[in-house]
Amino acid sequence: MSGPARLGPGWRSPAGTPVSEAGEFGLIERLRGRVEAAVRAAGGPVAAGADLVLGIGDDAAVYRPAPGRDLLLTCDVQVLGRHFRPEWIDPRTLGRRCAAVNVSDIGAMGGSSRLAIVSLAIGPQISVEDLEAIYGGMLERLLPLGATIAGGNVSGLDSGLVLDVTLVGEVEAGCAVGRRGSRPGDEVWVTGFPGAAAAGLALLGMPEGRRGGTGGDEAGAEAAVLAYLDPPARPREGLRLGRSGAIHAMIDVSDGLAQDLGHLVEDGSAGAVLWEESLPVGPAVAAAAQRLGVPPLALVLSASDDYELLFTVPPERASEAIAQLRSVSDVPAHRIGAIVEEPRGEVRVVRRDGSSIRPAGAGWDHFRQDRGRRSPG
Amino acid sequence: MSGPARLGPGWRSPAGTPVSEAGEFGLIERLRGRVEAAVRAAGGPVAAGADLVLGIGDDAAVYRPAPGRDLLLTCDVQVLGRHFRPEWIDPRTLGRRCAAVNVSDIGAMGGSSRLAIVSLAIGPQISVEDLEAIYGGMLERLLPLGATIAGGNVSGLDSGLVLDVTLVGEVEAGCAVGRRGSRPGDEVWVTGFPGAAAAGLALLGMPEGRRGGTGGDEAGAEAAVLAYLDPPARPREGLRLGRSGAIHAMIDVSDGLAQDLGHLVEDGSAGAVLWEESLPVGPAVAAAAQRLGVPPLALVLSASDDYELLFTVPPERASEAIAQLRSVSDVPAHRIGAIVEEPRGEVRVVRRDGSSIRPAGAGWDHFRQDRGRRSPG
Repeated sequence: MSGPARLGPGWRSPAGTPVSEAGEFGLIERLRGRVEAAVRAAGGPVAAGADLVLGIGDDAAVYRPAPGRDLLLTCDVQVLGRHFRPEWIDPRTLGRRCAAVNVSDIGAMGGSSRLAIVSLAIGPQISVEDLEAIYGGMLERLLPLGATIAGGNVSGLDSGLVLDVTLVGEVEAGCAVGRRGSRPGDEVWVTGFPGAAAAGLALLGMPEGRRGGTGGDEAGAEAAVLAYLDPPARPREGLRLGRSGAIHAMIDVSDGLAQDLGHLVEDGSAGAVLWEESLPVGPAVAAAAQRLGVPPLALVLSASDDYELLFTVPPERASEAIAQLRSVSDVPAHRIGAIVEEPRGEVRVVRRDGSSIRPAGAGWDHFRQDRGRRSPG
Repeated sequence: MSGPARLGPGWRSPAGTPVSEAGEFGLIERLRGRVEAAVRAAGGPVAAGADLVLGIGDDAAVYRPAPGRDLLLTCDVQVLGRHFRPEWIDPRTLGRRCAAVNVSDIGAMGGSSRLAIVSLAIGPQISVEDLEAIYGGMLERLLPLGATIAGGNVSGLDSGLVLDVTLVGEVEAGCAVGRRGSRPGDEVWVTGFPGAAAAGLALLGMPEGRRGGTGGDEAGAEAAVLAYLDPPARPREGLRLGRSGAIHAMIDVSDGLAQDLGHLVEDGSAGAVLWEESLPVGPAVAAAAQRLGVPPLALVLSASDDYELLFTVPPERASEAIAQLRSVSDVPAHRIGAIVEEPRGEVRVVRRDGSSIRPAGAGWDHFRQDRGRRSPG
């Protein structure tokens, strides 16, 4: 953390209640009240609530899994100044984002989200009301999926804010869809329009004066910014694809399309090709690319933080899988490539002229990249 | 985080491999290798490993719970400079500590630990070797219990280190032992000698010159320091007590004995008394109290971070519960008080002269206390 955070619109601090005034147990009570009120307002107990034997307030939460289910466990951390800038994102949207990146991972395994364990390390600038707003945002994403917040931990921090969410999901035993399992001949599909989130982040990072003034559709640029701040996740789509039994492998596009496709073949049992002419360039990506002065496909291939679903399906079952997807979602799905025998473990992009290249840009690495430019979840 | 950390003995940085050199995926591979080697060395697959369908390396870990079990979920964060000082604790011991505070919570519910999800936010000072050592320490605590590390997340941080561990445990359905459930007439028992850990922290915080020179047994003082850095947890004891079916409520003493006893009666259905003459003062607490110039009982009652078990049991089942405890552990257990009708919701200390007082010092609050003095998990 580098110095006190500059908090933007939507943050109550410093006018709000200091956490030091509420105290650890007062804060936990406030947050528990926030969760219980939201569950009631949602007409609860929500699906997960029914199985939640004991929620916030003991040494551990107690959850009774349904028989014949496997559990899915994932976590993702959001660090102030690293994954989010409080001058860009209000606390409610931050909460939505924290939940989205995790429900995306559960969806990408073909499962349904059930309960979240939330760990907060809280600097003195952050108010109780801000934390309640963050919880409110998380619950906006969790409750409609039948998931809730079941427990967690609060701790002090000298400065800043660290939010770590562990999300527990469920899937029919033996039916989790992992990264491995693609076979040569499979089609490669992606939902939505990857690249928008990172484009939005790049736009946010531009000097104010230049941001609106260098061409490109205004609505598209705004959509890109929103895709970064409040990314759509595809939990229902992932669940439905998993239940279809048609797909071989799935992953969410959080590190960048080419890199995440690489994860599907990194065990070396197959390779993958992407067809340049089939890569979808959405209006937000097109607008942002123009404004940023970069080729749209660079954003599509190597930009991160989109939380779209990338999956492989044998050709004879593709129409069935896509029909399942369409039964729960209006999000477009695009066939963008194929799993191939050779070269094993590699991703190639087949250009319009028939030549093939390795995609430039390796996608996101939390430790290697220029972190001023991108800061994915 | 306030400036770069001063790393003490046992840390490889800055001589070790920078995380930026390994990269995100290289680091994950190194940590996965560390886990797999430890599981093999332990004669694995360990108990949890057998149910772990998919471990580190996908969007989520996949775990198959045994039928008829409830799941327990807890988390605890360790922040460099806040919960630990790297000049006092080496990375392996830090890993042991991170695991201990979580296995303590699962044990305090009467459950057994199964798998950990580890979230790391890593500043540039920390080397790959240090992180491997932290993982090694966690595994030293987890594997003997049949638990392992199943997944997690790595992220960058401008400075410092944040380790957040979510631990999943299991208990026979309906048999979790919570904080509520004490009844008037119950005896109150505690394992071990609370107060040692906070005494050790206070000794570490003393100026070097004074630390050894103001009286008190040297071995006792060293034991207090060790109780802080590498706290014993009582997972097997908690599991056995829970399985006995004899106890009514249980909690681990992480916030301080009086405060944690207060948690057992905070729903207002009963009160609690502690008998001053029965409070156990261990040799480490006695030595540290002398050196620190504080009354031993102040350490016993209000100091935190001990991870002993506090439980209530009806008198007719106490001998059975203690026999169960002794079947798995040499740790002493002490009968220190009782659950009473009045005053509801309160903890009183009955002094040797028969008068009763509220215990001084409210125990630990992460946001209210002078954090230089104590920094519990």
